[in-house]
Amino acid sequence: MGETGAGARTPVVAGVPGPVEVVGVGLLGASIGLACRRAGLEVLLRDVNDDHVRTASGLGAGRAVRPDDVPALVVVAVPPDHLAAEVGRALDRVRDVPGAVVTDVGSVKSGPLNALAAHPGLGRYVGGHPMAGSERSGPLAATAALFDGRPWAVTPHPSSAPDATAVVEALALLCGGVPVRLTPDEHDQAVARTSHVPHLLASVVAARLAEAPGSHLALSGQGVRDVTRVAAGDPALYGQIVSANADAVVALLGEVRADLDRVIAAVAGADRPALEEVLGRGAAGTRAIPGKHGGPARPVLTVHVSVPDHPGELARLFADAGRSGVNIEDVRIDHDPGRPVGLVELVVEEVGAEHLRGSLESRGWLTHR
Amino acid sequence: MGETGAGARTPVVAGVPGPVEVVGVGLLGASIGLACRRAGLEVLLRDVNDDHVRTASGLGAGRAVRPDDVPALVVVAVPPDHLAAEVGRALDRVRDVPGAVVTDVGSVKSGPLNALAAHPGLGRYVGGHPMAGSERSGPLAATAALFDGRPWAVTPHPSSAPDATAVVEALALLCGGVPVRLTPDEHDQAVARTSHVPHLLASVVAARLAEAPGSHLALSGQGVRDVTRVAAGDPALYGQIVSANADAVVALLGEVRADLDRVIAAVAGADRPALEEVLGRGAAGTRAIPGKHGGPARPVLTVHVSVPDHPGELARLFADAGRSGVNIEDVRIDHDPGRPVGLVELVVEEVGAEHLRGSLESRGWLTHR
Repeated sequence: MGETGAGARTPVVAGVPGPVEVVGVGLLGASIGLACRRAGLEVLLRDVNDDHVRTASGLGAGRAVRPDDVPALVVVAVPPDHLAAEVGRALDRVRDVPGAVVTDVGSVKSGPLNALAAHPGLGRYVGGHPMAGSERSGPLAATAALFDGRPWAVTPHPSSAPDATAVVEALALLCGGVPVRLTPDEHDQAVARTSHVPHLLASVVAARLAEAPGSHLALSGQGVRDVTRVAAGDPALYGQIVSANADAVVALLGEVRADLDRVIAAVAGADRPALEEVLGRGAAGTRAIPGKHGGPARPVLTVHVSVPDHPGELARLFADAGRSGVNIEDVRIDHDPGRPVGLVELVVEEVGAEHLRGSLESRGWLTHR
Repeated sequence: MGETGAGARTPVVAGVPGPVEVVGVGLLGASIGLACRRAGLEVLLRDVNDDHVRTASGLGAGRAVRPDDVPALVVVAVPPDHLAAEVGRALDRVRDVPGAVVTDVGSVKSGPLNALAAHPGLGRYVGGHPMAGSERSGPLAATAALFDGRPWAVTPHPSSAPDATAVVEALALLCGGVPVRLTPDEHDQAVARTSHVPHLLASVVAARLAEAPGSHLALSGQGVRDVTRVAAGDPALYGQIVSANADAVVALLGEVRADLDRVIAAVAGADRPALEEVLGRGAAGTRAIPGKHGGPARPVLTVHVSVPDHPGELARLFADAGRSGVNIEDVRIDHDPGRPVGLVELVVEEVGAEHLRGSLESRGWLTHR
């Protein structure tokens, strides 16, 4: 099939045919528009909210769609509750356009697909889900860099046309993402495990803090802050996302509850081996998360540095760390109640840690491992 | 009562009488030794492991204890399983020393105290727990800076002598910590909530990852990394800590299970309001954690910056950020599988965010909010 139809009408850039129509011009939609425009593709913007179209247009993400426009690729970027309906409408619009493709960026894949099972032309639809976002929403927060280096799930279904799948993978690459091909079911199970269930458990742990006396919370360290951070997200949005993936989430939560029951019985019954068994599986799980840049996790060490908490000191620290030539993999600043000195943790590859420490000490920094 | 007895024999530094005997010369014990030596106090080191004493002594944390030494303050810093026995032995050793005080740094307070309920001289014991640690253990990792700005729980029991409590608070301050006075029960409930239960739930979430196919884990983002990070800790050590606080932990885990059951029923039954209710309590819980430096949490915004992943670029970023004059509250580096560009998140007070963004953009950085 190839790109004959669309290719004959408009330029194909790096495997992505234009014009590209974006439906739903929020953070993700407008960011995709910016990335496509950057590559030289024509972008058509559609949203029930005219302000969003005007804002995104002003940022250079494309122009308002017109009734006679004929898109070669439609990207649906609306909230989960509206996804299936908008994908269906997009399929109808491009029904007579040879080679046209419809994709989406929704966070759940099976439910919308099942809702569309009998829809004509479904072979031209291939789902997508970039693992990117921001605390902010709306087109004003958009940027073409949003997808840089992020995984972008591409989820063809059994009747998806192979050339349509290739177009969606090309879109992911053109936006700077890293395509990860999964079936819709695999995707939903994966995000249940790596996103939805962790979020729900973080919420349940954080709910315990809402009830606690302030003097108890004074003992909060970095650990509880990390465990609960994602729980700060908008309850209505996460309610919508989790509900759309109910089957996979409920199955995993059942496993969580079984392990939680094991922990409760082990702690209450002073069964140390049973408790350590669950803790041991947890430790193994943290090692299973892939390392930075997709490779296997490399051994790292943390170098702790005491840093006065005022402007310029972090700059001085990173300048001195840069001079050591050791690449910094991760940085954390510990929140320490009570005094204006911060503890900065520099995570570096194991082989460079001692050199970095020595280098910083020689420049007057107080380090501890 | 005052400090008459101890004060007559040796110098009292900032309310802390010497000599100070440290029992158990690991990371915490040796770090306390270093902090006391820094203040000019004599420090006596006791450990079943002679190597630990020699190492800590070589670092300047004190000298090996001799049979005729008479400590004015004993700090017990041994693992939870040995805590009560060592506190009891310390009380026996100082029984005839007027004004002498015994404290500890154990992570659980009620169990050891109950085990010592009938011990003679218990009024001279006041529990303590600095909220400080490291991925590393042992005296080689010790540093006097370990406690800088960290909360240090001080937990007198009903028969503790007030002057003994004052000495333990003075020790916390002398080490750079921030004393937080709680009853032993309050302390154990507080750490169950802010440390033990978050750890156990992180383990249960992380255990789900150990079983997952690699292609699913390719979708892992920063959220799941944060939620599960603490679960990487040593299962044997955490098993010991949690077991020592069984009552408080089991009570809270019961509440967690009740909320988890609510979530499962809500997701399975498509009860969106019930799901949002739990998510809403979680979001409220994250806002209850006190802000940096103990004050109320101030509104912050995150500025995202794309940074090439090689030495020197972070230094350049922080130098440029420092020139903006905006104080950076927190830093996160996003792990992005697939390409050598990192996304750095600079967390700053809301009022400074736009200025920082403009300042960085004008110096050529690609930012997005």
